[in-house]
Amino acid sequence: MSDNGTNGNHKGKKTFIVFSDEMDKVLAGFVLANAAAAMDDEVTMFFTFWGLNVLRKKHPPHVNGKTGLQRMFGVMMPHGPSHLPLSHMNFAGVGPKLMSKAMQHQHVASIDEMIETAREQGVKFVACTMSMDVMGIKEEELIDGIECAGAASYLAEADEANLNLFV
Amino acid sequence: MSDNGTNGNHKGKKTFIVFSDEMDKVLAGFVLANAAAAMDDEVTMFFTFWGLNVLRKKHPPHVNGKTGLQRMFGVMMPHGPSHLPLSHMNFAGVGPKLMSKAMQHQHVASIDEMIETAREQGVKFVACTMSMDVMGIKEEELIDGIECAGAASYLAEADEANLNLFV
Amino acid sequence: MSDNGTNGNHKGKKTFIVFSDEMDKVLAGFVLANAAAAMDDEVTMFFTFWGLNVLRKKHPPHVNGKTGLQRMFGVMMPHGPSHLPLSHMNFAGVGPKLMSKAMQHQHVASIDEMIETAREQGVKFVACTMSMDVMGIKEEELIDGIECAGAASYLAEADEANLNLFV
Repeated sequence: MSDNGTNGNHKGKKTFIVFSDEMDKVLAGFVLANAAAAMDDEVTMFFTFWGLNVLRKKHPPHVNGKTGLQRMFGVMMPHGPSHLPLSHMNFAGVGPKLMSKAMQHQHVASIDEMIETAREQGVKFVACTMSMDVMGIKEEELIDGIECAGAASYLAEADEANLNLFV
Repeated sequence: MSDNGTNGNHKGKKTFIVFSDEMDKVLAGFVLANAAAAMDDEVTMFFTFWGLNVLRKKHPPHVNGKTGLQRMFGVMMPHGPSHLPLSHMNFAGVGPKLMSKAMQHQHVASIDEMIETAREQGVKFVACTMSMDVMGIKEEELIDGIECAGAASYLAEADEANLNLFV
Repeated sequence: MSDNGTNGNHKGKKTFIVFSDEMDKVLAGFVLANAAAAMDDEVTMFFTFWGLNVLRKKHPPHVNGKTGLQRMFGVMMPHGPSHLPLSHMNFAGVGPKLMSKAMQHQHVASIDEMIETAREQGVKFVACTMSMDVMGIKEEELIDGIECAGAASYLAEADEANLNLFV
């Protein structure tokens, strides 16, 4: 990880907005984030909207105070990286299984493993607070060590970065 | 709004290409655009392809000289921000209604309100002329105060910006 | 094309990640890439995941050593730019035909023609090696003159560019 920390205009800083929970898009985000981190860039990934589902715990604690709608969102959306759909050729969930198999066969890491690598490499994960509010996802339902922040925080980081992608 | 106007290399300028007419993506674009404008950045949003539908008037005037195909596009595509689909869990239009309700419950502005805020904050809206030609959308069918321009104009603005996202 | 070649920090360099094989998104990528190249910018397009299908030959040579899964991917995914689906209103392939007709009527080039223009203008095409491995696509199945490279190569180019979009 970069030793420049968070002080401004670090040449190699990168940010990625992970908006989607589609396996293929999430994969693209992590491949780029991990490659950048491996090259000593400072990397921040912002998980917003459906992308929040990537950070959900498989077995989240029970949380009070959700509306019926938020409970419905919670049940219908994927819990964590193991059950993400594909954007194309999803075939009711068969596509992602085949894709995972093809990745394994080529010794490409799974998204679970990529998340672990990202964290080991010091990639910062930020969950979008507005999306959390709308979908009723609470911090304790997300994997540990996530920062929760809003659009202004994203923009401040993007201002310091030389690559900002919306995946 | 920035007092730097349009003269080059304004540090905080941002551009957003709104390609999609999916409610969730459009929302992401406006949240970022409005947050940047609130921080005094100069912001331009380019509406292209399906994204043009965000700018369509609810009750557009009758326009002559469209091909049958263009009339068909016009009828089938959403008229303005109130009828945008969701990229996931659309459920034949029920999903967007539920999402709107969830947003309202969390005091998140509707896309209609975000458009109004963007304009009040001086965010520039540009409609892509090539997409307008292909889909047969005329300037008078779009909300007032939109600039119509092409890819070269986008690139010139992006060259001056420090954040350019394709949403 | 720029006479600055590939040496660092060329002000006007642009990169585009073409992740999708949806006709409308591919179109957006080529319109921007070609407009930038026409303005003497150095342009690199990275084709990854479904985007690889844009580069597939219509009649690829037979290739040995594919797994059953890779053969299945090969059969099911589009062969080249003539058979790309639309992201919206695809209607089992009728949508893209109508869109092509609308483009032709407005004298907008087809994707086939845009690819040709891009190459004439010196736009560099790069195919993502990891995606090729996973989907079992071999270099000889892609159109000629493509470079094959990975995420690190993309990041190095993006570091030199002032516009990087994920389409």
